[in-house]
Amino acid sequence: MQLFIGNKNYSTWSLRAWYLMSKFNVIFTEKQLVLDTPEFYETLKNSFSVQKVPALVDGDLQVWDSLAICEYINDAYLSNAAWPTDSAQRAIARSLSAEMHSSFIALRNEMPMNIRATRNIDLSDAAKKDLARIDEIFSAQQTRYPNGWLFGQFSIADAMFAPVVLRLKTYQISLSALAQQYCDKVMACPILQRWINESMSETDIVASDEAGVDVININ
Amino acid sequence: MQLFIGNKNYSTWSLRAWYLMSKFNVIFTEKQLVLDTPEFYETLKNSFSVQKVPALVDGDLQVWDSLAICEYINDAYLSNAAWPTDSAQRAIARSLSAEMHSSFIALRNEMPMNIRATRNIDLSDAAKKDLARIDEIFSAQQTRYPNGWLFGQFSIADAMFAPVVLRLKTYQISLSALAQQYCDKVMACPILQRWINESMSETDIVASDEAGVDVININ
Ligand SMILES: N[C@@H](CCC(=O)N[C@@H](CS)C(=O)NCC(=O)O)C(=O)O
Ligand SMILES: N[C@@H](CCC(=O)N[C@@H](CS)C(=O)NCC(=O)O)C(=O)O
Repeated sequence: MQLFIGNKNYSTWSLRAWYLMSKFNVIFTEKQLVLDTPEFYETLKNSFSVQKVPALVDGDLQVWDSLAICEYINDAYLSNAAWPTDSAQRAIARSLSAEMHSSFIALRNEMPMNIRATRNIDLSDAAKKDLARIDEIFSAQQTRYPNGWLFGQFSIADAMFAPVVLRLKTYQISLSALAQQYCDKVMACPILQRWINESMSETDIVASDEAGVDVININ
Repeated sequence: MQLFIGNKNYSTWSLRAWYLMSKFNVIFTEKQLVLDTPEFYETLKNSFSVQKVPALVDGDLQVWDSLAICEYINDAYLSNAAWPTDSAQRAIARSLSAEMHSSFIALRNEMPMNIRATRNIDLSDAAKKDLARIDEIFSAQQTRYPNGWLFGQFSIADAMFAPVVLRLKTYQISLSALAQQYCDKVMACPILQRWINESMSETDIVASDEAGVDVININ
């Protein structure tokens, strides 16, 4: 099984699929493509109808989109272990994951993921509203599952929100104590640390994700 | 079970959840809210953390987002009958549904759903690219499942793309023969016709979805 991903420093959607698969010890080969290069589109064009990452090849099957890849892995390899076992909790986990998948547009636009950077920028009211909603989600779930993942055990929902946790660090956002407690838990995860460390050794620059950087630490 | 929806004439995401549930004869009460009114936000604020439709209440459980509602109904009420039974086909159906859920931004912006209108507008290159991709999806699936739904039997994928079929009619888009064959099948569905007929009797106007209308037929 091959997972095509983009730059670890920048590619939020790639991280989601990679994190889920890595955390559940699913065996796969990582195929990295540098975003915004001709090779990126050429390579994906040969196998996929959509030229975006993440994209998964499993034998004859091509799966694209982070959420669809997570659902496929859960379904075909994990006997549903990547969602909460309780039907109602599973519905809420899917609602949050779908909300992440389709919303938070201001946050996604104004705060591109850039793991190696530290930034301090002015945010629009829309981005502030997105951040308030993130804080609400993280703290509500920490109240329900103290010191746990969003739904107690690690699930697809945590994979979906992981890039937001990394942005909160880059952009130095202050959170409520409970939301920060969740972020600390995510940041302490050795699998996520592996992605972070690998992102630090990348040297490619995607200009549109760099505006306003205060400090760049390229290892 | 209560499903909150918006105006039938305009609310694409509402249609997706409503169509899936109605087509599979799931019993629910429809709660209609008029988009862009104070009552819309007031009512949703009482039950939901996100003030968007569709939104579902099932006993103590609140589920929001069209895709999450479809997955919940499939999971809790339909013994997975709303996805293809084959694991690989299910993965492709989920990829297409996730693509609809997160992409086609130009098409969604430039061609708002407006069932009762007929329009003829100039489209951007991005919207034309979205339409070419829609044609590719519909015709490829008609080749695989001649005269069938996207995956032979009706699935969540058909519910996700139904609002696009209605837009193709409103905006008088020419399609390849196979893609048109799929659209004709969707338009002939009595359940979808019920939604269309009900949309025709609505009189509320959402100004932002009306720009450029050539003909408005309000019954
Ligand atoms: N909805 C998709 C979004 C995928 C996406 O936009 N990926 C970005 C990288 S993070 C990409 O491939 N961009 C290249 C392009 O759009 O040309 C998903 O969830 O996987
Ligand atoms: N990703 C959501 C999108 C829901 C959505 O944007 N719904 C629109 C109506 S079609 C809405 O409620 N708009 C009101 C608002 O955004 O204030 C879904 O799939 O359900």
